[in-house]
Amino acid sequence: MPLHTRITQKLGIAHPIVQGGMMWVGTAALASAVSNAGGLGIITALTFPTPDALRREIERCRAMTDKPFGVNLTLLPSLNPPPYAEFRRAIIDSGVTIVETAGHNPREHVEDFKGHGITVLHKCTAVRHALSAERMGVDIISIDGFECAGHPGEEDIPGLILIPAAADHIKVPILASGGFGDGRGLAAALALGAEGINMGTRFCATVEAPIHDGIKRFMVENDERQTDLIFRSYRNTARVGRNAISQAVRAAEAAGEPFEAIAALVKGARGREGLATGDTEHGVVTAGMVMGLIHDIPTCRVLIERIVADAEAIIRSRLPGMLV
Amino acid sequence: MPLHTRITQKLGIAHPIVQGGMMWVGTAALASAVSNAGGLGIITALTFPTPDALRREIERCRAMTDKPFGVNLTLLPSLNPPPYAEFRRAIIDSGVTIVETAGHNPREHVEDFKGHGITVLHKCTAVRHALSAERMGVDIISIDGFECAGHPGEEDIPGLILIPAAADHIKVPILASGGFGDGRGLAAALALGAEGINMGTRFCATVEAPIHDGIKRFMVENDERQTDLIFRSYRNTARVGRNAISQAVRAAEAAGEPFEAIAALVKGARGREGLATGDTEHGVVTAGMVMGLIHDIPTCRVLIERIVADAEAIIRSRLPGMLV
Repeated sequence: MPLHTRITQKLGIAHPIVQGGMMWVGTAALASAVSNAGGLGIITALTFPTPDALRREIERCRAMTDKPFGVNLTLLPSLNPPPYAEFRRAIIDSGVTIVETAGHNPREHVEDFKGHGITVLHKCTAVRHALSAERMGVDIISIDGFECAGHPGEEDIPGLILIPAAADHIKVPILASGGFGDGRGLAAALALGAEGINMGTRFCATVEAPIHDGIKRFMVENDERQTDLIFRSYRNTARVGRNAISQAVRAAEAAGEPFEAIAALVKGARGREGLATGDTEHGVVTAGMVMGLIHDIPTCRVLIERIVADAEAIIRSRLPGMLV
Repeated sequence: MPLHTRITQKLGIAHPIVQGGMMWVGTAALASAVSNAGGLGIITALTFPTPDALRREIERCRAMTDKPFGVNLTLLPSLNPPPYAEFRRAIIDSGVTIVETAGHNPREHVEDFKGHGITVLHKCTAVRHALSAERMGVDIISIDGFECAGHPGEEDIPGLILIPAAADHIKVPILASGGFGDGRGLAAALALGAEGINMGTRFCATVEAPIHDGIKRFMVENDERQTDLIFRSYRNTARVGRNAISQAVRAAEAAGEPFEAIAALVKGARGREGLATGDTEHGVVTAGMVMGLIHDIPTCRVLIERIVADAEAIIRSRLPGMLV
């Protein structure tokens, strides 16, 4: 039996589970698998080298699922920014109906997407940014806690606090992001005031994720303690799986080494090659604390159905059983 | 209608809400108020200068409530450790039936308490420490997430991850600690696998907490972002409310200043005086991220009844309403 919320309704999906936008991982292969299983799959725009390549990936995804899917456009500070406006145009021209924006200064993008009738989720890590995005007209706020893989922001507020704090201020539905991977987390997110969950790391450890088995096993074998925060000294913090590279970057940051030295440590190691070869030692592996709750590598369908069934059992049996 | 769990049953209390052990705050005044409202109040042993003073406080609490209450014994690294064995003896001799231990190497204490038929909760911040305490025979594990006030440990795992990770390994009931302050949090904790919540900061902002109104208003006025982690460089991290002292300590730690210089910053400022005078600028004010969810200063009874009623509404109405 499905769980219905304002988010499943707005997105036209069966289950309140959204796949996070992930560089190199958010391809049609994964997005279509998640969407076919009743969640919302998301293609990550900047994974593709050009707007035309993104157009082709969107077409490919459409051939693989007749369910809704979305496209993520992440706006990060960069010395050489990608051609965001052209990627945005490719998304709009392709007839995509759902977009996830993330990162800094989304206004121009949000307004253009909304002007084309697209449903926009905006992911952010602070209540004040959520309020700002709500004023821009986004349809759903994805609020991303300290636990998350990738970019947790600089304020380190975990979901237990951040989700209800956002719910106290935000009127549009809230998607809870960061640290989610099982039915307990889904039920907790709904209790805290969210209407669905976003999962990134958990979807990496699935059969359909287009990454090497060695990376998937890294997610299974590590526990919640095996992550590191890097790039904090640049206020561009990223949570990654702990390995020789992440430890070297942390040591270099602590020692105050120059940016060039630190950049050299991660140059060519930002994950893409390792994801393909399964090498978890010579590249940065983006991963969140939810690794402590990942014990297998199921298909997306098995994973989503298990999470929903477990959440339903908590809602239908465990919690009411405590009321006497 | 009360919520019944293995924790309410083991402790003989009406509601699955335990007051955290807090230096200077955990007196008979607060503990009896929490217990009279159906939670478990806790006297903090080391708040009292001598074991005899603790004996008198326990007697005073017994005169103020006929409900169960507990005593906290926190074991922290110290150059001049308090006479733990004598405090333990005072607790046992006083006929206390529930003890919360916290901190390092609790074995000697746990074994003595258990040998005297006392129900023991042990608070810890890592799954492996919880497993170790379970093997010692503790009755309840209180698992304390990164959000918490006071001592979150050095691994920074928030409750969203730490609670289910503990539940995957621990057989005795789990009390969720760190970041809890309302009914949403209680319902979420129960969904994540806990059977109750521990609240510290939230109980500071109550009518009965024996601290100055200025401190209570500090908890109300600050949001989730107004805390600092200090003493990380000594692997004795403490989360405190952000003020001039916490910022100075962080700056001194970042600059690598000697321990003596940092100790001088907090000397005489460890909170007791400020708690009495309401001065939040010249002392360390222990406070957790849950400040972002604290909006009033109710009595303990109003607070506990509201939390339980809100959790019940989530369990009885919000969550089942999503099942269709």
